[in-house]
Amino acid sequence: MEFIINSDCFNKAISDVNKAVSLKTPFPILSGIKLTAHPDCLVLIGSNSDIIIEKVIPLTIDGGKVLEVIETGSVVLSAKYLSEIVKKLPNQIHLKVSDKQVVTLRTDEIMTSLNGFNSEEYPSLRQIDETNKIVISSNELIDMIKQTAFAVSKSETRPVLTGVNLSFNENHLTCVATNSHRLALRELAIDSDVSGSFIVPSTSLNELLKLIQNESGLIHLFVTESYMVFKSNTTSLFSRLIEGNYPNVSGLIPKDSKTIITLETKKLLMGIDRACLFASEWKNNNVNLEIVDGNKIKISSHSSEVGRIEEIQNVKAIDGEKELSISLDGNFLMDALKAVKEEEIKLSFGGSMRPVLLQPVGNSSYLHLISPVRSY
Amino acid sequence: MEFIINSDCFNKAISDVNKAVSLKTPFPILSGIKLTAHPDCLVLIGSNSDIIIEKVIPLTIDGGKVLEVIETGSVVLSAKYLSEIVKKLPNQIHLKVSDKQVVTLRTDEIMTSLNGFNSEEYPSLRQIDETNKIVISSNELIDMIKQTAFAVSKSETRPVLTGVNLSFNENHLTCVATNSHRLALRELAIDSDVSGSFIVPSTSLNELLKLIQNESGLIHLFVTESYMVFKSNTTSLFSRLIEGNYPNVSGLIPKDSKTIITLETKKLLMGIDRACLFASEWKNNNVNLEIVDGNKIKISSHSSEVGRIEEIQNVKAIDGEKELSISLDGNFLMDALKAVKEEEIKLSFGGSMRPVLLQPVGNSSYLHLISPVRSY
Repeated sequence: MEFIINSDCFNKAISDVNKAVSLKTPFPILSGIKLTAHPDCLVLIGSNSDIIIEKVIPLTIDGGKVLEVIETGSVVLSAKYLSEIVKKLPNQIHLKVSDKQVVTLRTDEIMTSLNGFNSEEYPSLRQIDETNKIVISSNELIDMIKQTAFAVSKSETRPVLTGVNLSFNENHLTCVATNSHRLALRELAIDSDVSGSFIVPSTSLNELLKLIQNESGLIHLFVTESYMVFKSNTTSLFSRLIEGNYPNVSGLIPKDSKTIITLETKKLLMGIDRACLFASEWKNNNVNLEIVDGNKIKISSHSSEVGRIEEIQNVKAIDGEKELSISLDGNFLMDALKAVKEEEIKLSFGGSMRPVLLQPVGNSSYLHLISPVRSY
Repeated sequence: MEFIINSDCFNKAISDVNKAVSLKTPFPILSGIKLTAHPDCLVLIGSNSDIIIEKVIPLTIDGGKVLEVIETGSVVLSAKYLSEIVKKLPNQIHLKVSDKQVVTLRTDEIMTSLNGFNSEEYPSLRQIDETNKIVISSNELIDMIKQTAFAVSKSETRPVLTGVNLSFNENHLTCVATNSHRLALRELAIDSDVSGSFIVPSTSLNELLKLIQNESGLIHLFVTESYMVFKSNTTSLFSRLIEGNYPNVSGLIPKDSKTIITLETKKLLMGIDRACLFASEWKNNNVNLEIVDGNKIKISSHSSEVGRIEEIQNVKAIDGEKELSISLDGNFLMDALKAVKEEEIKLSFGGSMRPVLLQPVGNSSYLHLISPVRSY
């Protein structure tokens, strides 16, 4: 194998696939990146037990030549050393594999040689099964992940709750994440007849977010029983799925409420942030919300040892009962508010021990649910 | 005590003195910041066993009013909570101490109360002894610290080597730092008749660097047997001194050399950085320098398991013997090169086992010395 490549372009692709590579694998070859030079492109693959990232570098990008393949072939190189060295090399890199998998990288007067692995020992990638395909714009997919993935469970006690549930049904996609104390739900109209329910690890989705963050375009989703593929023009991410049945959450969302308060999202977020000051003093990070004077909301928290903080905010509107005092986990409330892009938010309360429903005003496609905590 | 203060200004001062405060002190009051309101200013003090930082906020800054003292007095508040809460408060803060050291911070509709400590329990600050005073421009002091402090010993085996030696002698200041494998020396003409040798912990100097980074003006140094004070307009840093005798290093600096090479500082730094690629594979992080073709320098390193890297750089000039092969700790070399602001650098070699002298071209006020390592 032999090729000449633009170092910036090579560096970017290496750093993308490197996100999947773990140094702590028992198989040395899996701590490497597989490079395959085809006549018309260079393919890079990095993997761990959860995800595989594949990146394709074409011969030209935006009309500019970035790659010249002199001889096709493949090799696996240590991800750590390859990424370190390519980061520090200027201009064009001339990479060549000699006998015994020794790889030389040459640029001007700098000559590096790295010992590679035989690429035949690297596990081969599954062929993508193109039967069940869904197309989503990358912007919508990014929003969807940001609005749900944070709410998954961090504990492995119930593995299904560590993933986001994607359920497809008649041109409709519903994404749900919950840790059983809070829940995030996002709905999306899609153009596909795929149906089925899949649980994707939140870690995979967070990696996907980093990869497609700056891409605008379409993402193709391919689903099978055991894995899901997210594919853009130049990048593919294969994720394992979590086995098991996801709980049915449709019954949890309250239909009626005693009090509905409409507030400015950012102002509320800043108030809750301040009230979380004594967070480390409290196991549940309790923040208390209370209606005062019939038309204002008091946000407060206290720690008997350190002190207390309270503030009174004007609200846009209060509908229903004007009496309310409820304690919530301030961090859960902040996470949910950060996921809201809309200027105003509606909080619906069914009573001091019933879950609070958060809905952005003017957008019915997503909602958050937070269970109250006991206050002492 | 009661005052009204601009929150940005208060926040900046708190974050400066907070640099000295440690959460891990056995005395709860020392994890606090002492606030003292005088008729014409507010003084903040934070301390640990090595340093004390004192910050003065005047009534006006650049003609704008930032502070109004309503009642003088003092209190000590938890540094952690005070800094957290002030960071999140907008506009003006109205601070008031009530009975029992409960402090309220009020701004618009936000009311916080923090439990304070009685300020009488806070250790009182030494009066500055103004006998031995030196004045240095903050720019020169910043340069001096950057050019020497990195070279101190990280090990406590010989405590004196963990500090920078400042020795004053007839209008002349010499700063030296060494870990016995490398040495950094900086000289400075000063206008003072103070004489004596003092060892300042490098940690104190690094804190000082952060404090005066953006200050232009004069720094007043006051020295005594046991502590040193660095004082700018609004900030004072008191540092303990390290007891003991600093080794005399004047005999270590080689007077003659077999080979002198002149190089571009940045280009050499980038080459050494690349050659450090296999750093983690080597105990001493060996980088080899070799003269090739009588007019070029080859920088190389290798790891038998991973691979090797080498590059050949053109040099500006080689004087003396044209034969040289020497191994140095690449990280020591990088640290020294990073401290050089001049475009070109002169490396003087006395033989493969003699220390290498680094001197910036066109500036004789500082130098670096690095002992070679054995190469295998």
